[in-house]
Amino acid sequence: MQIGVLGSGMVGQSIGGKLVELGHAVKVGTREPQKLAEWLGKVGGNASAASPAEAAAFGEIVFNCTNGVGSLEALQMAGEENLNGKILIDISNPLDFSQGFPPTLSVCNNDSLGEQIQRTYPAVKVVKTLNTMNTNLMVNPALVPGEHDVFVSGNDAEAKATVTNILKDWFGWQSVIDLGDITTARATEMLMPLWLRLYGVFQNANFNYKIVRG
Amino acid sequence: MQIGVLGSGMVGQSIGGKLVELGHAVKVGTREPQKLAEWLGKVGGNASAASPAEAAAFGEIVFNCTNGVGSLEALQMAGEENLNGKILIDISNPLDFSQGFPPTLSVCNNDSLGEQIQRTYPAVKVVKTLNTMNTNLMVNPALVPGEHDVFVSGNDAEAKATVTNILKDWFGWQSVIDLGDITTARATEMLMPLWLRLYGVFQNANFNYKIVRG
Repeated sequence: MQIGVLGSGMVGQSIGGKLVELGHAVKVGTREPQKLAEWLGKVGGNASAASPAEAAAFGEIVFNCTNGVGSLEALQMAGEENLNGKILIDISNPLDFSQGFPPTLSVCNNDSLGEQIQRTYPAVKVVKTLNTMNTNLMVNPALVPGEHDVFVSGNDAEAKATVTNILKDWFGWQSVIDLGDITTARATEMLMPLWLRLYGVFQNANFNYKIVRG
Repeated sequence: MQIGVLGSGMVGQSIGGKLVELGHAVKVGTREPQKLAEWLGKVGGNASAASPAEAAAFGEIVFNCTNGVGSLEALQMAGEENLNGKILIDISNPLDFSQGFPPTLSVCNNDSLGEQIQRTYPAVKVVKTLNTMNTNLMVNPALVPGEHDVFVSGNDAEAKATVTNILKDWFGWQSVIDLGDITTARATEMLMPLWLRLYGVFQNANFNYKIVRG
């Protein structure tokens, strides 16, 4: 499959690298494609770097792996015409580091970045997921033993089913919890403060949430 | 031990009932003590109902089981002089139902109700805990099988150690995670949106979070 990955940071490289490993053709969209030269050399010929618009146009499915506070601007560069009708897997968190650590959220409580993206691009099938864990764990959940959970939020049931299959069959997730429509992205984005505090306590990012039921 | 419980709702009754069962003397503080007549008949003679000020004065330790949006007012009625120097175990969440369901938080992101209480009562040892699960589970974690977590946040290490012992020895918690100072109450109060969505998905409140580590 042809897949567009917006964002060339750790998340984009991790997702992009895994997709190439799975045999997909990946175009990473970034303002500075030259910065990906080393990474491209490592992952091999099925990956390329291009502008956000080229990456979005290339992808049958597009991953938003951009920095949350820059996501709306990055998606504008990607271009509505290159995204419309497609599934956008939104992994971003609206973390605002401008006041130092720990960051606050630039949007939360009665709105979320997932909803902002969905409102801005009504013809895009936004599915929020994978935004509640460390980058490495996203594509290799076995790094944490046993069963633990990843959440999906989105308005389009078929898109969520496709993303659930991607999470399970491609990335190896055993437990995917569908929280509901895109407004439920508030819930997972608002998990970030707990994640950051737990990271501070453990001094290690290799952990995840498991919902245990009685 | 003499324990004050502020709030006569489900949380206050659950905590108060368990404390009586454990052999403690409990005074529940409420504006409408007459409403507790039936409950008092059920739990027996070691419990009583009184004003918030009387309950706070009575308690060697005080539980805040009031509705989050009314907590600061309730604590004002309890009286600073009756709380100073004591441990206040704060179980409240600042849920604002004024715009319908799901509720939003009346404070979050760069502040929390736990911090507001600590700022308002600097000589009180506020420990935020038990605010991330269903009422029944608070005092009976075995309702959900296996190990799962409860968090504590607070500025006073000794107070947190005392509360951790209460959680373990009195209520039966196996895993207590100390997140840090009272600013970490933001993290657990901001878990409420996820809890509410999971409750919507499961149609059952008998679940909890387990942090699984690699």
